[in-house]
Amino acid sequence: MNKIKIFSPATVANVSCGFDVLGLCLDNVGDEMTFTKTTSKEVIISNITGAKLPLSPQKNVAGAVALAMLKEANANFGVNITIHKGFTPGSGLGSSAASASGTAFAINKLLDNPFSKLKLTQFAMIGEKVACGSEIADNVAAAIHGGFILVRSYNPLEIVPIPTPSELRIVAIHPQVEVKTKDARGVLPEKISLKDAITQWGNVGGLISGLYTSDYDLIANSLTDVIVEPARKHLIPHFDLVKKEALKAGALGAGISGSGPTIFALCKGDEVANSVYKAINNSYKDKEINYHMISSKINTEGVKII
Amino acid sequence: MNKIKIFSPATVANVSCGFDVLGLCLDNVGDEMTFTKTTSKEVIISNITGAKLPLSPQKNVAGAVALAMLKEANANFGVNITIHKGFTPGSGLGSSAASASGTAFAINKLLDNPFSKLKLTQFAMIGEKVACGSEIADNVAAAIHGGFILVRSYNPLEIVPIPTPSELRIVAIHPQVEVKTKDARGVLPEKISLKDAITQWGNVGGLISGLYTSDYDLIANSLTDVIVEPARKHLIPHFDLVKKEALKAGALGAGISGSGPTIFALCKGDEVANSVYKAINNSYKDKEINYHMISSKINTEGVKII
Repeated sequence: MNKIKIFSPATVANVSCGFDVLGLCLDNVGDEMTFTKTTSKEVIISNITGAKLPLSPQKNVAGAVALAMLKEANANFGVNITIHKGFTPGSGLGSSAASASGTAFAINKLLDNPFSKLKLTQFAMIGEKVACGSEIADNVAAAIHGGFILVRSYNPLEIVPIPTPSELRIVAIHPQVEVKTKDARGVLPEKISLKDAITQWGNVGGLISGLYTSDYDLIANSLTDVIVEPARKHLIPHFDLVKKEALKAGALGAGISGSGPTIFALCKGDEVANSVYKAINNSYKDKEINYHMISSKINTEGVKII
Repeated sequence: MNKIKIFSPATVANVSCGFDVLGLCLDNVGDEMTFTKTTSKEVIISNITGAKLPLSPQKNVAGAVALAMLKEANANFGVNITIHKGFTPGSGLGSSAASASGTAFAINKLLDNPFSKLKLTQFAMIGEKVACGSEIADNVAAAIHGGFILVRSYNPLEIVPIPTPSELRIVAIHPQVEVKTKDARGVLPEKISLKDAITQWGNVGGLISGLYTSDYDLIANSLTDVIVEPARKHLIPHFDLVKKEALKAGALGAGISGSGPTIFALCKGDEVANSVYKAINNSYKDKEINYHMISSKINTEGVKII
């Protein structure tokens, strides 16, 4: 294989009660990337469309991942990368993770699949470090595995794929405002009450259980974050309104995607998803903020060749 | 049905990372109880063997549960109860929960099954209040449902039965020392770090997932409590030694049962369980503390007619 074109999906991290441990993968939002083998042993990013990002491979998420993989595999070729960003960096939908995971997947194919999904996740985490300064796993693991994933532990890294009930749909709104990572981290409490923590891990247990058994009521009951959402939601304009309208329209639950500003809602079935889409859209259309709506299935495949 | 004899099992609450939310049910340790309909509309506890407990129905766990159920069902009969305690109150193995759950199960049978398992759990929680002052659900829910259960929420009460991998075994040691509930509650931190909480709910997610998929490695990796065990273990003589020896002998994990003093270890298969039994026994036999060893399958049936 000398050339590969892939689609690398957007992802939702911090799924409600699963702050820092639960991610999921979207189906119809993501980056398109091409990777062409070259004889120069260099990594060249020849074109980026859809967003303004650095072309220097060391400073680019995709470039950094490709360099690390080619080095570890002691590859006798280089690679020329083109990137079309299908969604906006800074949305809270794992933009850097899409580019990093897509690269990990594609370079592995060009190398004839020497690496496991866990190893690909670790390579993609190098890209996350370039983008945001820390090796976050939940977005890249979701993009690489597809569906829902649990980051059980970072040390050692353990990723657990969780089944996706077939009727689950996701609706999201990306208000075009900037939420600085520093602010989103800054409002997190360092200490929390044991009582709240117990509520949260009861919900994590319920959500995981509901995903295994396709118990949508249990999923709905468990999609509650009593710790991070209350601390962060003021950073996102009209969060409470969007959530309220989504739930009123039948969503199983709603929350902040990653560190925002995107707000996601999980729904059972296309009909409810359509209602929730309309309700969220209606709640925002008279506000003086540009926004972008998303409606998607859960992608259980992850990054794929196109 | 005018008379019923039942076996009501011991249970482990606070299963490792699942403090206050995860319980499991033992197979061969528990109470034997008989319930005989009477015409007097009273609840009489005519005999208790195996432990010294109040015979007054209002002050007795079983009596309080029976009174509440007969009242709610507007029953036209009373009941005469005998109790043989098969294990010691204060062990951390859900002694009051066994009597409460057994009563809830048996009275429901005598009433011709009007109540759901959730309702039976709520009745049994009345017994927990009599015994320890608060309506704890994890032991009684485990005894009533069998296997592993998750208390997803108290308000409203939601109990989620979790599958039990067939090779799971439990080995436990009950050192005959008193751990006062007040002390066990008193050492709990009111506030915990968000970082530790995330570790804990990652482990809860991993443990639930491992139980659904019979992934014993994942179960083993997830059986870690970074919050409550470190705060409580000094209340239990030689806890660290017992845990170390259990893990060295192949246990998947070990922790404090309920609020102690019993220490439990989960194991894969009979062979490992035997080794762990010997290892724990060896670690304690030269200590000047009386103790009692337990080895059991996980009881997936809960309270049963005998």
